Amino acid sequence: MTVQQTCEYLQGQDRILILCHQSPDGDTLGSGFGLYYALRAMGKQTQVACSDPIPPQFGYLLPETMPSFDPQCVVAVDVADPQLLGKALSCWADRVDLCIDHHPSNRGYAARTLLRDTAAATAEIMIEIIRGLGVQPDVKIAECIYTGLCTDTGCFQYSNVTSDTLRTAADMMDLGANAYRINRQMFSTKSKARIAMEREVLDSLVYALDGKIAAIAVTSEMLARTGARESELDGLSSIPREIEGVKIGITLRERPDGFKISLRTVERIDASVICARFGGGGHARAAGCFLEGTLESCRGKIIQAAIDACKEAGI
Amino acid sequence: MTVQQTCEYLQGQDRILILCHQSPDGDTLGSGFGLYYALRAMGKQTQVACSDPIPPQFGYLLPETMPSFDPQCVVAVDVADPQLLGKALSCWADRVDLCIDHHPSNRGYAARTLLRDTAAATAEIMIEIIRGLGVQPDVKIAECIYTGLCTDTGCFQYSNVTSDTLRTAADMMDLGANAYRINRQMFSTKSKARIAMEREVLDSLVYALDGKIAAIAVTSEMLARTGARESELDGLSSIPREIEGVKIGITLRERPDGFKISLRTVERIDASVICARFGGGGHARAAGCFLEGTLESCRGKIIQAAIDACKEAGI
Repeated sequence: MTVQQTCEYLQGQDRILILCHQSPDGDTLGSGFGLYYALRAMGKQTQVACSDPIPPQFGYLLPETMPSFDPQCVVAVDVADPQLLGKALSCWADRVDLCIDHHPSNRGYAARTLLRDTAAATAEIMIEIIRGLGVQPDVKIAECIYTGLCTDTGCFQYSNVTSDTLRTAADMMDLGANAYRINRQMFSTKSKARIAMEREVLDSLVYALDGKIAAIAVTSEMLARTGARESELDGLSSIPREIEGVKIGITLRERPDGFKISLRTVERIDASVICARFGGGGHARAAGCFLEGTLESCRGKIIQAAIDACKEAGI
Repeated sequence: MTVQQTCEYLQGQDRILILCHQSPDGDTLGSGFGLYYALRAMGKQTQVACSDPIPPQFGYLLPETMPSFDPQCVVAVDVADPQLLGKALSCWADRVDLCIDHHPSNRGYAARTLLRDTAAATAEIMIEIIRGLGVQPDVKIAECIYTGLCTDTGCFQYSNVTSDTLRTAADMMDLGANAYRINRQMFSTKSKARIAMEREVLDSLVYALDGKIAAIAVTSEMLARTGARESELDGLSSIPREIEGVKIGITLRERPDGFKISLRTVERIDASVICARFGGGGHARAAGCFLEGTLESCRGKIIQAAIDACKEAGI
């Protein structure tokens, strides 16, 4: 579907239920509530739903009250796979009328799909839809869209950012979005448990092959000690690869009977080939596998495989 | 001076020496080399100078060779105070013909000054000058300007960012600046010594008053153990204040006979008042002082003062 077709379709609907993905992030919520406020401005009944509770840092996106109704139209935003709707919303998995998304992996499960995988965030597509619906975005919508843009790009740092992303963010600031307040909330506030986890993870850091390989671990014991939740572990696995001189960054994450391994590599070393040795796979720069055993034995095995790969690549 | 006046002045000059500030950052270098490439494109002789060696991560900004000559015109970029030229360039302190800057604290030391303190970076002003000179910015200039923009804003995260900043960055991407590569170089690469310091600093973290106060320490022992240099400590002092629920963030930095204290506070608590108790001062949200004694005694004193301030503020 094009943006225009999507707008025409939405204009003909009412009682619109908007679905976000589980473990909600700034883009699914920002896009979802952005659409919500736009539809409401058009006088339509609408509602946003998510399987998981909305994390408190996103509180500013929420309306004071939300109506509840029997939906005529179901729209999924930033949801690549119906499984990502989560348990509480699984009843809608086969009944999505429209999906708006930017993930190249979108499974095409909805009756209609507007997919643009060159967009850094679904929010980048959503603002076009909102404008296409004839709604003049207010501050609230601008903050929703800005939130989606900045969270899906690591504050405009990642490779998905285009000049369009930056110009859209600029437009949202001109519409009154308090970018600095949102950035602080998203990027400069860490929970005590997260800080404690960073300390634990740095304590676990080991180097091999003259510092060309770095490995960190996230164990169940650490989680118990710090009280960190799943959502507080975001980004930890990028720590090893961000260290100067490191060619292979390894993260070992404890599971009931072993360790889930995440590998990040620089050019010339294929992470998926290393992980394939252990029945795993993925991409050239990021791949994963599972190893049974203790931390020491799993770490030993994957580091040895990483050393072999470096030597083969002549690094 | 206006941008137009600045351009008219530069058009009439040749043999232009461009001065950056000491401990050079991405903005002084990006603005300086951006101007350098523009003047060279106009057929003028030009040269960039800095008191300190240029950090290796900025290597991509440099030309292959730079001529040396007896300057007719001296331009300081992003230099708020002639003292910041550093020792090696102090001979030029009284002879700066033109200063281009965005610091509100600029001392007006140059014969001509173009100061715009609403610009997030000097690079934001510099691209206007380059265009005003009639130079069509190439990739090299675009990467210089983008570098200044992203480094002075923490990758578009700080309160100095305006929609103009984002649009200028978008323009630089359209001109071919590899924003992602620059971002990675600037923000996602940490030295092993820096990582080791982060670990040490997190190990030193203590909380007081139910987690409303957090203090970290940077001791000479830590520096010796990790081999971290001064430039690798950037941003460490913001760690305590970024922790959720923390109202006063304290950093103790060891000096020969005591500790230099940096205080960061949230609204309602005046950091400068707390520091004034110990003969220090600063701003309401960020202030400093010096305490003689051991880590334990200095930390005890400043934490007690912070507790008092919280109680007075009813926090």
